Order: sequence, then structure tokens, then C-alpha cells
Amino acid sequence: MNCAVVGVLGGGQLARMMALAGLSLGLRFKFLDPSSAACAAPLGEFVASGYDDPDGLSRFASCADVVTYEFENVPQNALYFVRQRVSIFPPPEALAVASDRLKEKTLFRKLDIPTPPFAAVSSRADLDIAMESLGLPAVLKTRSQGYDGKGQFVLQRKNDADAAWRQMKGAASILERYVEFDREVSLLAVRSKHGEIAFYPLSENEHQKGILHISRSRPGDVMEAAAQKHVRRLMDHLDYVGLLALEFFQAGECLLANEMAPRVHNSGHWTIEGAATSQFENHLRAGLGLPLGSTAPRGHAAMVNIIGLPPVSEKVLAVPGAKLHLYGKEPLPGRKTGHVTLVESTENDLEDGLRKILYAVNREEQCAQCVA
Amino acid sequence: MNCAVVGVLGGGQLARMMALAGLSLGLRFKFLDPSSAACAAPLGEFVASGYDDPDGLSRFASCADVVTYEFENVPQNALYFVRQRVSIFPPPEALAVASDRLKEKTLFRKLDIPTPPFAAVSSRADLDIAMESLGLPAVLKTRSQGYDGKGQFVLQRKNDADAAWRQMKGAASILERYVEFDREVSLLAVRSKHGEIAFYPLSENEHQKGILHISRSRPGDVMEAAAQKHVRRLMDHLDYVGLLALEFFQAGECLLANEMAPRVHNSGHWTIEGAATSQFENHLRAGLGLPLGSTAPRGHAAMVNIIGLPPVSEKVLAVPGAKLHLYGKEPLPGRKTGHVTLVESTENDLEDGLRKILYAVNREEQCAQCVA
Repeated sequence: MNCAVVGVLGGGQLARMMALAGLSLGLRFKFLDPSSAACAAPLGEFVASGYDDPDGLSRFASCADVVTYEFENVPQNALYFVRQRVSIFPPPEALAVASDRLKEKTLFRKLDIPTPPFAAVSSRADLDIAMESLGLPAVLKTRSQGYDGKGQFVLQRKNDADAAWRQMKGAASILERYVEFDREVSLLAVRSKHGEIAFYPLSENEHQKGILHISRSRPGDVMEAAAQKHVRRLMDHLDYVGLLALEFFQAGECLLANEMAPRVHNSGHWTIEGAATSQFENHLRAGLGLPLGSTAPRGHAAMVNIIGLPPVSEKVLAVPGAKLHLYGKEPLPGRKTGHVTLVESTENDLEDGLRKILYAVNREEQCAQCVA
Repeated sequence: MNCAVVGVLGGGQLARMMALAGLSLGLRFKFLDPSSAACAAPLGEFVASGYDDPDGLSRFASCADVVTYEFENVPQNALYFVRQRVSIFPPPEALAVASDRLKEKTLFRKLDIPTPPFAAVSSRADLDIAMESLGLPAVLKTRSQGYDGKGQFVLQRKNDADAAWRQMKGAASILERYVEFDREVSLLAVRSKHGEIAFYPLSENEHQKGILHISRSRPGDVMEAAAQKHVRRLMDHLDYVGLLALEFFQAGECLLANEMAPRVHNSGHWTIEGAATSQFENHLRAGLGLPLGSTAPRGHAAMVNIIGLPPVSEKVLAVPGAKLHLYGKEPLPGRKTGHVTLVESTENDLEDGLRKILYAVNREEQCAQCVA
């Protein structure tokens, strides 16, 4: 496998960081993405093609030794088409589950992984029945294609039902009871072809406007064992290979599974500096049948997402220990264009440094600078 | 500087690892190398050109915001040609010194940096005079173009003089008294445009057949202060910008400067995992006027070079903590094709792991596997 070629469906920052990890291992990369401006493109062979174009998919799959994907919205048909030519990890069945909120939560329940109460909604009438059985407030979500809080509507009162249903535009949906939670955490784990599983420490996640803002590693967290039990059951059931993230709401001492991502995940970007082996390297190791690397934490880590216009690099790098990652993407409002990581030996030092980083990436300030 | 373009003269593994560090910072890269098989080529825009081709050099320099180089044998004229178009770091004057062993050692002496006794040799007659004044054994070296022990001849007896001089093929040379040394160490340091200097811990280096085999980081080494004093004087004198390595022989409590490298250096590859900021990132930060990153060690680190055919990745990655770096180069005998790094919290753990790595990269064994 010394010079294996890895194909990645999707050419965004997850593909890019996977390639940066894999190039060090001597791997080569091939990307397929509809946009030739995809930020992973400069790091390997690039096929500009839609996911539904057999010709593009064929060109992509040729000469690849193994294929993976970097986001949930790859059409199932594309995966099955590619799988006829080359092996794919994680298993497309995991993607089929993850890309449909109803299938996903139904599987969680089947595996005794607690979730918020939910009900399928296929019509306006369904919505009334679901509201009645679950109670309000509740969140109406499209079953597929949603991310970063898109395709969601929070219902506070019965009167909100018409507006909520209109926003779904007739798409098959799911109503979920709104959960008062104490915090959001995610557990990242990697599973080898032989069924060996390595868990990263829990990530504790803060969102802003529906987009992940800060993730902190929580080595030795009290909820670790419970989260590991759920993730192990899920991975074993799916005969999973590669990295998986499972997001939870924590309410009291209870973890409620929110959603899974069958891929490398934003809440694990801190693993590049904050763990012995990054999520990107371990995902590749798993898919290539290589021994998994240690997931041991190197200290207390935190990651801050950069949304839109990147900050002035000088200001970020002036913060002692700050590691800057820019993805080379055109900055658009609400778009993830980079992140900053900090690893410290104590939580106090981490919080001190984090404050400086948040100040340095403050967008209003740096927007003014860029305009000036 | 968020999306600055860095030009690198030379497209080998040093350029490749520089790019892997810089791409994370959002930088883009351009390489010039005579060989289109150069292993950095896939990581940026590539100009296949000789170093003496003005057209190639012009294409290379266009659109680059800053230029650096990855080896000493870039012709001075190429640097001066490029400097008319774009700024270069480290200063070409440093390269002019480093690429000529006589100029280099003369400068060391001028700066009160001890060296082994030496004398210039331009003719067979010079060699006799030099042998007489320095004594034997001694090493005859070409003044320029030598690396990894090439272009060197060890003289044990006066009778060796004819053979030694023949091997120099009339090239301007230098005779150096052979030094009985206890160990070889190198100090890597990075200097900013403002004259700020950050030192890495000393590297202790073992060679095999003239090629670097193992480097170990030596945080808190007793010779650290003495080495730093020499490197500071050298960098300040050259008004240096970027990373520099200075190699020493240690004899008793005395450091004798052997040679400098005005670039990132093989004996600092362990900094990728073993220091807070790698030599590659700090070299770029310095050249781009960004704040230098911390050079603090993360523990005790060691690096093993891979020469020729790479080992089976599975075997290396099965060693706990081993980080594999393969350069994607065609394996030729004596050619550096990768390295493996290990970082541990104690020297004992490091030596234990190192033994396992050396076993895993054992070339005879893996050659047999590759043939099978």
C-alpha cells in the first residue's frame, strides 16, 4: 500500500485535510467534485463532475485503490456505481442511514441508543398528529439534505405548524421533541476492517447560528463510557470501517443521540494537534487495512471554526501555541474557511489561550482591516 | 499573506514537507526543479527547468510573493536572477558561504566559532603543504557540490595523497584535520526579519555510510548554550531570515563547527511531531514576516531515515506512536525516500520504541518481502 491511490468523493476541506494527512504516508489522491474550485483539488488528481455522471464517476474510480467520501449528501446511486469498480469505506449502508434522519433515529432506537422522541411527517396532517403525540416545542426537519441547521423549523406553538410545513416544501420530514440539554458532545471513533475500535476523547461542542463554533476535547469525561457503549454498538451493527462521529445532547446524566456522521468530522479537527494520531490519518489507516494509530490525547485541546473571511494570519499566529488551518476556499458568508487549534496541558491555560484566539479571529474587526 | 504564493527552488522532500506545512496555513506553492519526477511537484504549480534557464526562472518567479530554496547547490546566478524579481530568503549570501567549504570555515573562524584545523588545497603541491601543517589523518573535500559524504577522501598516510587528489579531479578543495569526536550534534534555529531567534533543542546525529541515519532530540543538553551562542553569532552576522542548521563535532567539552545548511534540515525532521512548531512551518513564518512559533519540545523525539526501498507501511505503523513519512520518490540505492519519527515522554521509552522502528525499517527483510 506504500503508494496506494485514495479516491475521495467530494473535494472540500475534509478531503483536503485527509490528503494532507495521507500525503505524509506516501498516499496519492483523486477527488471528484462538481466544482472545479474545490479546495482539495490542488492536492491530487481532480475530476470535475456531477455525482450523477457515470462518465465522471468512471474516470474517478479508475486507478483508485480504495474510495471514501467526505460528506453525507453523495447520492446512494453514485456510491453503488463506484462500488462495482472499487471498494468503498465507510460502508454505503452507513451513509444510507445517516442521510435520512428517520432511518437514522429508527436505527438508534433499535440499538437501544436513546434519542429525543420523534415521529415521521409526510403530510400536513401527519404534523398535527406528531405535535399531539410529542408535545411542543419541537423541531421539524427534512429527512435528508439538511446540514448546519438548514432545513429546520422550531415550532413553539400549534399556530407555527402551517409556516413550518410550508418551509419543508412537501419534503418527507421528521418532527423531534425539542430537548432542554445541558451541553452537546460528540464521540469520534475509528473501526478497522478487523473490528478493532479506537475512541477519541469526547468533544464538547458550542454552536453559533446553527454552525459549529468551538469544540473542546474532554479527556476522561464522566460521560465517556456511556458514549463509547453507544458508538460501539452502532459501529459493530454497521460492520463499519473508518471514522464515525456520533453527536449527542446531554440532559442531566442522559445522552440522547442527535445524529451520526459516517466520515471525518468538524468536531474532531482538534485531533490534528491534540491527539497522537489525527482523525484523518486514522480514517485512512482503517480504510487501507493499516494498523490504527493511538487516539490518546496530547493535552487539553480546543478548536475554533473560522467562518467567512479569514482573520489576519499574523494576529492568530501571535497567540502562543495557536495552530492555524486555512482551507484556501473563497470566503462567503456562513462558509467554513478554516479553523484554529490550541493544545495546553491544563484546562485553565486552554481557556486563557482560547480567549486570545477568539479575539484574534473576531470577524468584524478583521473585515474592517481587509476593507482598509 | 493569507494566500501568499511561496516559490521553492528545488522540488525534493524538503520542498514537499515545506508545502505540507504551508498548505495548512493557506499558502500556495510553486516549485522549480530540473526533474519533472520531483516529489514536491504534485503539491503546487511546477516549473520543470534547469537552474540556469532564464526562461524557466522567469516563469518560476512570476506570481511568487517570496522565494526560498531547499538545497545548497542552487547556482548563485540563479538566485541573483530571481532576486531581481522577488525577495528571497534565506539571504543568498548565506548560500554563497554554505556552498563553499573554504568560505564557510573561514567565516566560522572569523566569528570565533571553533572548527577543525583546515587549509585550502588548489593543487597537488598544496596538498603536501597542507598535510604537513595539519598532520594525518585528515579529510580532503571538494570546496563545493559535496553532500552525504560524496566528494570526500580520508587520508591515513602520506601515500594516500595521490589517490585523494586524483579523486578531486582538479576541483578546488579543502583539507581538514580528522577529528576524533564523541558525537555529532546539530542546532536548528529560526530567525525572523526583525532579528528574533528561536532555537530548537539540539539534535544528536548518527550516520551510516556518510548518510544521516538517526537523529535524536536532546532537550536540555549540556552543550545547548554553547551551540546557541555560535548559531546566534552566525545568524546575526548574515542578517539571516529563515531556518538554519549548524552541525558540530563534539570532542570532550568542545564543539567544532563542521558545516552549516541555510535551509530546513534532515536532522530536524523530528520537529514535525516533536516540537510545538515544525522547522518547516517556522521557516515559512520567518520568510513571510509572520510571528515565529514556539520551538518547545513535546517530549523526547527520534527520527530514522528510510534509505532506498521503503519498508512495509503495516510494519512501521504497528509500532505504537511511530509516525511514517514517505516522500513518494522512486526508490534508488542510497536515496532518502522517507523517515519515521517517534516521540515519547522518557528517553527509555524512546529507545525501546526506536529499536522496534529500526527492526521494522530493516531493508534486507523488506526487500525480500517485496520480491516475494
